[in-house]
Amino acid sequence: MSVLVVGSFALDTVETPFGRADNAIGGSAMYIATAASYFTLPIRAVGVVGGDFPPEGIAFLEKKNVDLEGIQTIDAGKTFRWSARYHYDMNVRDTLSTELNVFETFNPEIPSSYRRSRWVCLGNIDPVLQLSVLDQIEKPHVVIGDTMNYWIEGKKDDLMKTLRRIDILIVNDSEARLLANEPNLIKAGRIIREMGPKIVIVKKGEHGALLLTEETVFSAPAYPMESIIDPTGAGDSFAGGLVGWLARTDDLSEENLKRSVIYGSSLASFCVEQFGVEGLADLSYLQIRDRVREFKELSRFEEHEPSYGEQTSP
Amino acid sequence: MSVLVVGSFALDTVETPFGRADNAIGGSAMYIATAASYFTLPIRAVGVVGGDFPPEGIAFLEKKNVDLEGIQTIDAGKTFRWSARYHYDMNVRDTLSTELNVFETFNPEIPSSYRRSRWVCLGNIDPVLQLSVLDQIEKPHVVIGDTMNYWIEGKKDDLMKTLRRIDILIVNDSEARLLANEPNLIKAGRIIREMGPKIVIVKKGEHGALLLTEETVFSAPAYPMESIIDPTGAGDSFAGGLVGWLARTDDLSEENLKRSVIYGSSLASFCVEQFGVEGLADLSYLQIRDRVREFKELSRFEEHEPSYGEQTSP
Repeated sequence: MSVLVVGSFALDTVETPFGRADNAIGGSAMYIATAASYFTLPIRAVGVVGGDFPPEGIAFLEKKNVDLEGIQTIDAGKTFRWSARYHYDMNVRDTLSTELNVFETFNPEIPSSYRRSRWVCLGNIDPVLQLSVLDQIEKPHVVIGDTMNYWIEGKKDDLMKTLRRIDILIVNDSEARLLANEPNLIKAGRIIREMGPKIVIVKKGEHGALLLTEETVFSAPAYPMESIIDPTGAGDSFAGGLVGWLARTDDLSEENLKRSVIYGSSLASFCVEQFGVEGLADLSYLQIRDRVREFKELSRFEEHEPSYGEQTSP
Repeated sequence: MSVLVVGSFALDTVETPFGRADNAIGGSAMYIATAASYFTLPIRAVGVVGGDFPPEGIAFLEKKNVDLEGIQTIDAGKTFRWSARYHYDMNVRDTLSTELNVFETFNPEIPSSYRRSRWVCLGNIDPVLQLSVLDQIEKPHVVIGDTMNYWIEGKKDDLMKTLRRIDILIVNDSEARLLANEPNLIKAGRIIREMGPKIVIVKKGEHGALLLTEETVFSAPAYPMESIIDPTGAGDSFAGGLVGWLARTDDLSEENLKRSVIYGSSLASFCVEQFGVEGLADLSYLQIRDRVREFKELSRFEEHEPSYGEQTSP
């Protein structure tokens, strides 16, 4: 099924304890579209780049068969740039600089060929722009959205309007707590579901992810990574894997939502094994499926079968 | 199989967003022994209380059939007291006061009837005392130990000696990182296993627990609690449930270690539903088993079976 992805395209400069990448191709739409492309096609990208966006970035997406008609190029402008340093404890990072550049005046225009996209994945951009995208799509089947502290704190009213049109919200744990104003994540999920999204997915980094719906709580483990090279893009790869899996299977049952969280987690785990989008460059479907099986093993346990004669009550 | 439990007996004054308990019966040995008593007997307690320790505390343990011969009572002294306030986000607490009282000069003496205990659970006390306990036991089958930041920072050398004699170390995530001097928990587990314990269990509070052995990583989810009344004793209840299950089954296979982590998590989840040890007062084995099944459901997902005609590669 068709997936429309809107978000940023960026040039990221990132320093981790394991090295440094300068002006690496990135941005939320880049990661989401790439991750989703392993599961379904067409993937339709919407975003904006400057004249400095390297041809390799475009070639990368072309190789993944991503539709690029919705990517505006402003030749006279510069691509969105972001720079950060991860600490020795890579759960912590300092943002060193953010240059919006062409992203500052970005106004997503959805090409007519995209308007009947069935699945829409709204990367973490201004909720006003997210809404404008939705207004340009004819009856999307499912809308998946991401947001961040910046919009929760600065554009709460707009965000609340957008949330009413989002079916599946993907946020990290601190964003969930902030949005709901509630430290308990289970309660926070319930509060957020009253804002609109019937399904809330909470990313917890090294602690995995939670799927929170009306009926269920599903706890997905984190893949045990000893060598995280660069955490950048993990959350977007998660979203891309998740939406890709859901669009491929067109199945929103609880069972399949659980699977989608694991597929998302798998793509995120591949992402952080290399700098930038490199970890997503050359995966095979078999590799992804094997990792999903590893996830299954990670939290699997069998109940104890009492042997004859063993006490079954204390 | 017999389990010896050494640790503190305390009077805890605790304030949470849901209320307050004054001089509630607590302490690590209290929680561990109670939780373990649901699985196996005899449970042999070692510790010290003052003349002010309420008879109800002793009666509580007697009701659980815990052996009390190893509990010294110093009539002229006062019981160890601890006081804390939990924040609205109950992952955060401030310790308001710690009065060691009779615990300051505690020197565990193991009654001769305890000396052949097969399983030894060392609650979080001075590693010098933990070692002294081990020296008094004839060839324990399995030693399970807990420690904390205070000893890691203040008595590292003594702790390192004790660690060499511990088979299963139970620590929380910040303790694991501190002990190993490594932020990545998977790597930290490997480093700690080189210090002695072949099995490391990392408690992560609202994020569940990790079992780290030579061969496996097992990720146990946290029980989705909306109403945590008092987190005090959760970690000790976890240890008690874990050691109780292992001693009951006398099985250190990977499969059974995984189960023990789930039984520990279950007991911890019951503990935090009420103030102090009340949550552990009247459980049934059936209740515990039902909760273990809920844990199983919490992280269970089935792999997708492709239907005829569906694409199986992208």
